[in-house]
Amino acid sequence: MLKGSVLDLARRRKTSRSFSSTRVSPRDVIEALEAACQAPSGANSQPWRFLIITDPKVKRRVREICESSEKEFYSNVRGKLKNWLLSKGLSWDKPFLEKAPFLILIFSERKAPYSIQSVWLAIGYLLLALEELGLGTVPYTPSTTKAVVDEMGDPEGFKLEAILPVGISADKKPKEPRLGIHEVSYLDLWGKSLSPADLPS
Amino acid sequence: MLKGSVLDLARRRKTSRSFSSTRVSPRDVIEALEAACQAPSGANSQPWRFLIITDPKVKRRVREICESSEKEFYSNVRGKLKNWLLSKGLSWDKPFLEKAPFLILIFSERKAPYSIQSVWLAIGYLLLALEELGLGTVPYTPSTTKAVVDEMGDPEGFKLEAILPVGISADKKPKEPRLGIHEVSYLDLWGKSLSPADLPS
Repeated sequence: MLKGSVLDLARRRKTSRSFSSTRVSPRDVIEALEAACQAPSGANSQPWRFLIITDPKVKRRVREICESSEKEFYSNVRGKLKNWLLSKGLSWDKPFLEKAPFLILIFSERKAPYSIQSVWLAIGYLLLALEELGLGTVPYTPSTTKAVVDEMGDPEGFKLEAILPVGISADKKPKEPRLGIHEVSYLDLWGKSLSPADLPS
Repeated sequence: MLKGSVLDLARRRKTSRSFSSTRVSPRDVIEALEAACQAPSGANSQPWRFLIITDPKVKRRVREICESSEKEFYSNVRGKLKNWLLSKGLSWDKPFLEKAPFLILIFSERKAPYSIQSVWLAIGYLLLALEELGLGTVPYTPSTTKAVVDEMGDPEGFKLEAILPVGISADKKPKEPRLGIHEVSYLDLWGKSLSPADLPS
């Protein structure tokens, strides 16, 4: 386990889109999911469900389905998002869906209050827990989710929010830079800059 | 700082709806927000904005506006959610909006890709960082947000996602129980139970 404060873990964690073939302990994946299960949720409905995929045939099938929808998405995307995708070398090709030792498919219960919000909050817990355990991931949402969901047994009343490939990162890209706290925060009124001197001592 | 693994922090953290009058260091609030700013986001758009409120007059006004919309909500709520709210002793009364030393209003940039998802993932980071620093909170979303947003200077293109009152918890209620990992996880196919023995060794 890599020790550090939440802020240390948050700063260190970066997206991993490629993974080594190193074995990953299922206990670690389960420990990280246990952290996610402790998140708060609307009316404590705990609308998250986790489908862990280890079977290579199933992983390959998920990759095929996702790449098929990505090909359509990439042929249609335009504007700022297209430029960003190109600048990052991203394409329809999603080898991480097959090469990561684990995939975690994350579903939300459609009718639960604040379902999407609660599930993504839990994904925040999950990412920090994985980082602490030395595991990399990227929250990947396929361009269309229906075909994946159908393949998984068509869970009625649940929506696929993201697929997290999990493994030891082999991604050499640096972390994308983040805006500083002063660029995204205001004090007492929208647009009023925050400076430590403004805050009550 | 209260040390512990992410799983320890996640297990320990519970909702706080009442706060002591103990002073809270603005540095701690900013440190927790710095962790949130490190979260990943769709196309790294970092669609979160944080409006920190310390001015007692502004806190009181936020409380008044929210309680006004809550009164309407509570007079209309029905069914399962109403029963849950009653069972938890919740009502339109939101003293925490005035009594917490800090309010953090969290906004999402409407046009950013996966905006809501990214902001709530960052809220996951924020909750764990606050817990580590010994600070309690509850992600509270007013029944209607328009009146609060108007009062804050009407930030064009941004949506209010949640208000987090932050302070030293004085909430004596125990943590709401959570489902176990085996109740919310499946292996390789929806509905197929997960047991550690199923996972690759």
